Amino acid sequence: IEANDGPRVTVLAGALHEADLGALIVALEPEERLRLVRLMGTHFDFAALTEIDDNIRDEILEGLPAREVAEGVRDLENDDAVTLLEDLEPEEQAEILDALSPVDRAQLQRSLDYPDHSAGRLMQTTFVTAPPYWTAGQAIDVMRDTDEADLPDSFYEVFIVDPGHRLLGTVFLDTLLRSKSRALLEDIMSADRRRVEVTEDREEVARLFQRYNLVSAPVVDEGDRLVGVITIDDVVDVIQEEADANLKALGGVSESEELSDTVFWTAKSRFVWLLVNLLTAFIASSVLGLFEGSLQKMVALAVLAPIVASQGGNAATQTMTVAVRALATRELSRANAARIILREVLVGAVNGVGFGILTGVIAGYWFGSPSLGVVIALAMVTNLVAGALGGILIPQILAKFHIDPAVASGAFVTTVTDVVGFTAFLGFATVWFRLG
Amino acid sequence: IEANDGPRVTVLAGALHEADLGALIVALEPEERLRLVRLMGTHFDFAALTEIDDNIRDEILEGLPAREVAEGVRDLENDDAVTLLEDLEPEEQAEILDALSPVDRAQLQRSLDYPDHSAGRLMQTTFVTAPPYWTAGQAIDVMRDTDEADLPDSFYEVFIVDPGHRLLGTVFLDTLLRSKSRALLEDIMSADRRRVEVTEDREEVARLFQRYNLVSAPVVDEGDRLVGVITIDDVVDVIQEEADANLKALGGVSESEELSDTVFWTAKSRFVWLLVNLLTAFIASSVLGLFEGSLQKMVALAVLAPIVASQGGNAATQTMTVAVRALATRELSRANAARIILREVLVGAVNGVGFGILTGVIAGYWFGSPSLGVVIALAMVTNLVAGALGGILIPQILAKFHIDPAVASGAFVTTVTDVVGFTAFLGFATVWFRLG
Repeated sequence: IEANDGPRVTVLAGALHEADLGALIVALEPEERLRLVRLMGTHFDFAALTEIDDNIRDEILEGLPAREVAEGVRDLENDDAVTLLEDLEPEEQAEILDALSPVDRAQLQRSLDYPDHSAGRLMQTTFVTAPPYWTAGQAIDVMRDTDEADLPDSFYEVFIVDPGHRLLGTVFLDTLLRSKSRALLEDIMSADRRRVEVTEDREEVARLFQRYNLVSAPVVDEGDRLVGVITIDDVVDVIQEEADANLKALGGVSESEELSDTVFWTAKSRFVWLLVNLLTAFIASSVLGLFEGSLQKMVALAVLAPIVASQGGNAATQTMTVAVRALATRELSRANAARIILREVLVGAVNGVGFGILTGVIAGYWFGSPSLGVVIALAMVTNLVAGALGGILIPQILAKFHIDPAVASGAFVTTVTDVVGFTAFLGFATVWFRLG
Repeated sequence: IEANDGPRVTVLAGALHEADLGALIVALEPEERLRLVRLMGTHFDFAALTEIDDNIRDEILEGLPAREVAEGVRDLENDDAVTLLEDLEPEEQAEILDALSPVDRAQLQRSLDYPDHSAGRLMQTTFVTAPPYWTAGQAIDVMRDTDEADLPDSFYEVFIVDPGHRLLGTVFLDTLLRSKSRALLEDIMSADRRRVEVTEDREEVARLFQRYNLVSAPVVDEGDRLVGVITIDDVVDVIQEEADANLKALGGVSESEELSDTVFWTAKSRFVWLLVNLLTAFIASSVLGLFEGSLQKMVALAVLAPIVASQGGNAATQTMTVAVRALATRELSRANAARIILREVLVGAVNGVGFGILTGVIAGYWFGSPSLGVVIALAMVTNLVAGALGGILIPQILAKFHIDPAVASGAFVTTVTDVVGFTAFLGFATVWFRLG
């Protein structure tokens, strides 16, 4: 690249699989990325851009003339083209669409008109259909004679439709191959094939694929007319992204944060979560402030209070993790909520008693005061039970109000365990030692 | 089921998809589950058992006579049979294997002999092969004439092998269908097809599928001989399980914990993580203990110290979440480690200054002491930078020692932020206010 040797770069990079080409682009210095794409010219496979981080992709697309992008997009499957264009600025998107042929433009525009995160954005709009009265042999002959450009890059099933393009059923390719040549398609098709509504949320689509081990699924509009097909490779990306989103949300990181973000942007996006946290930390501290008198009289309380709060916080986080995951996978529902809540409270109580005794003994020895041991033990049991309740109930309450439990639970749950932990420990101590 | 009406239950439940039958079993009371399976007798589809939690599955399998299980297992694809048997007690497994025919037993035993989590455990051992000199039409004719029982339930490609059963390439079914009838398989096959070694770790397999958008992949032994095929539906489960494992590990929950576990078992499995945490909490408290004199003289320090520790802990958790995820996806490697570490430290510094000023102003007002505000601000900057360093370095160090960073990072990271937070805040205060 440094030598600006176009032909040589093209030979070297042109043989790469799109995924490897994508990885190569990411590994390059920012200013070299655009140069690589431009050096390769028409030999550059735009599918590689679907494999890389959003902001690197947008940077490259913005650096290229709209006409060149349009050329590249034209060769892509519909779903890949949507991935490329959906995050661009509206003007830029319009410019690229204008450079396409009217047919391509209309098709792409329709996909982009479906809501974000809907099945319509994921689907491919090229697929193979056949009428029910064809025979297996006839279907194979027609496919052999069809122009390559009119077939999808890869497909796994033939959709059987009526004259109104309504979906009747599908025939998998392996079924087609093992059937007698004279078998009618309507006799070998699976009619109860699971279908996806075009406006369905992509998370729902992913759940359907996972549950029924699907490889591809037809997408239909309100009139049950076939409009596209979703294949497993797109769904795998959705599954990975959703899992990542959950993980990041629980860690207090924004879903869209990527390693290629700038320092300033990253700091800003994490600031909000830390701000919420600072607020809860001040609430917890103000509880400590209420007991200033007791703390003054008995400094051991100040030393030990964080232990009660932290142990409660960690037990609550365990419960919360289980709850958030079970809500995401729909394993936790109204049907079994009572059973699961009871289970978590009992787990909290069992571990509360265990750690109460353990902490009580250590603290009692440390400060030479068995009474202090008893007080911290009682506070520990209280806080672990409260933590279990908070950890299992708060995600469910948030979900009921349509707030993502993975994002918001953490702050509430630790507030509960900090406040209950400090209040129980210092409250019990104040009463027991008559510090009030 | 209550009426013990076998035929009726069979009619109602027999029509269900295996995934729905699995969900039905999970929703039943424990004692009814086994009854359902026994009522359905030979109509019960054992594939449903691959869709449910390990301990419910094992409970049912242990409740059934080995002969009945063997009957059910015989009808399954090899990979599903492995899923069913791999977690059973060795004696039980042997009993079931003994009830199978010698051929089935040998095949299943071989799959079970591959190491846990290897490609060998995931693969199906029924697949379609053809020699390179066949034509497309010939291949289709042979498939039509093959007995259904000798073909896999579903397949997406035909493997081209030489007489020594070494893999030469593959032909996807859609390629086969669009090729001329007289085309030779060796001319239409993709020869550079990505293959999986039978001993490869399943996480590696999942990464390969994701990266190259595969739907199925051939599995070969050391001699490059074809021994099986892995399909995407099995890989999707692996992806989901790995993501879950990461999420649970970060939340301090064991990877194998399921909603169906008993209270005692759950409490026991979470105890270990809480114990590690108690230890780190005592370490942090002993730092507070070192400054007992200062705390006695100035109780405001006891009230504010948890804020510094908590804010550092949360910032560090954000960094750690990003690091753990990037390590899992291989986005973070030696090549970009220096850049990412620098980025995280800068993010920590930026947010440290921001929250330092904010906390300093609030604390200064609260206790009417601007000096206290300055002290807490300095401690905050120190702890957020330390947290960023801990959050990015500790997972990498653990990974270098082959310890799962998702499991172990949390405890180390919060110890760092607690110790640094308390030491910085109380240390700066002791020097500034001459409390020593």
